[in-house]
Amino acid sequence: MTFGDPTATDLEQSRTRILEVAERYFRRIGYHKTSVADIAAELGMSRANIYRFFPSRTAINSSVCGLVVKEVAEIALAIARSNAPASKKLADLLTAIHRHSTRRLVEDRPMHELLVAAMDGSWSTINAHNEQILAILKALVREGLQTGEFNVEDVDEAARGIITAFLPFFHPVLVEQRVQEGDAAAVSLHAQIRFIMKALGTSERVLPEGISA
Amino acid sequence: MTFGDPTATDLEQSRTRILEVAERYFRRIGYHKTSVADIAAELGMSRANIYRFFPSRTAINSSVCGLVVKEVAEIALAIARSNAPASKKLADLLTAIHRHSTRRLVEDRPMHELLVAAMDGSWSTINAHNEQILAILKALVREGLQTGEFNVEDVDEAARGIITAFLPFFHPVLVEQRVQEGDAAAVSLHAQIRFIMKALGTSERVLPEGISA
Repeated sequence: MTFGDPTATDLEQSRTRILEVAERYFRRIGYHKTSVADIAAELGMSRANIYRFFPSRTAINSSVCGLVVKEVAEIALAIARSNAPASKKLADLLTAIHRHSTRRLVEDRPMHELLVAAMDGSWSTINAHNEQILAILKALVREGLQTGEFNVEDVDEAARGIITAFLPFFHPVLVEQRVQEGDAAAVSLHAQIRFIMKALGTSERVLPEGISA
Repeated sequence: MTFGDPTATDLEQSRTRILEVAERYFRRIGYHKTSVADIAAELGMSRANIYRFFPSRTAINSSVCGLVVKEVAEIALAIARSNAPASKKLADLLTAIHRHSTRRLVEDRPMHELLVAAMDGSWSTINAHNEQILAILKALVREGLQTGEFNVEDVDEAARGIITAFLPFFHPVLVEQRVQEGDAAAVSLHAQIRFIMKALGTSERVLPEGISA
């Protein structure tokens, strides 16, 4: 047990409570309809008090967005740390990220809208999240190089290539377009994972089950 | 010389004039601010007369969009038909499509906005365009298979994989995000083309100049 700084803890608790209320409001009426006054009233605080913890509405939006994407990062990390071949983990990780984005669109529309705004405005929490996913992918690519599953020259470039090639399967705007329309040029999830695996130099022999052609 | 059907020609000419005026208006004040009444007034026609040629505002928007993307398809076709190795033509084609999208965003913002709406609404002209680009890519992949530059099992899947992996470089919403922000996970144009070439089984030996690592 350590002796925490009580002031810091109080601040943290207040921030957490504000974000909890904001998240609830966002889910109920949407982030763009939620005002700082709504959040303050629910907490029995003044608006000015909220601004002690968050300098702006965007800061609140961005922090709630950070909570939402944290779930995705945790799933990705759990898969990356599991005990399986790197190529299998990469396929599972991409599949999980895609499913999460699609489910959010269908079942948690308000948070989907928040993510659209986050990507559009390049909020700091979404950028931090993207960097974290990139770091996880780099570690996976390195692992696959060591096991001989992958064959690439530049780990950083390969990891960025994976994210870019997979963007249509998790970027909120593109996921929405995929679900809505019959995109003539659309490719299936498995086909795109195969395409990515091939770019990583994976031979058919080590392709995870369900991904091989 | 053939004897054209005068009625069909008149109809076609009227459609063309309406689209020319619409395109001019779109460039000047944006497609969402342009009304059918504006277009009708400029042509000295009634609004009802416009609707004889185009059943809806969306039909006009979609047709103007068709003119805008036609340019891109023509550039792509010209490259695909030129006399060069398939891998070089593919790299040139992707580069040209990316440059065109970026230039439109910077220099022709109103048409960029029109394309954003077109992708969002899955307009018929943009779908037809995407199918045309897909067909051009399939032909290129087949060509590269014959010359031994590419090594893929499924031509259709490979062509769709290319489009999907390259989407962040030409989808209007993503091009806008690339230009605006410093995306932490961004990859360079050349790196992504290399990634795609590798997925197509291109060996380093045949990579076009400027694309090799």
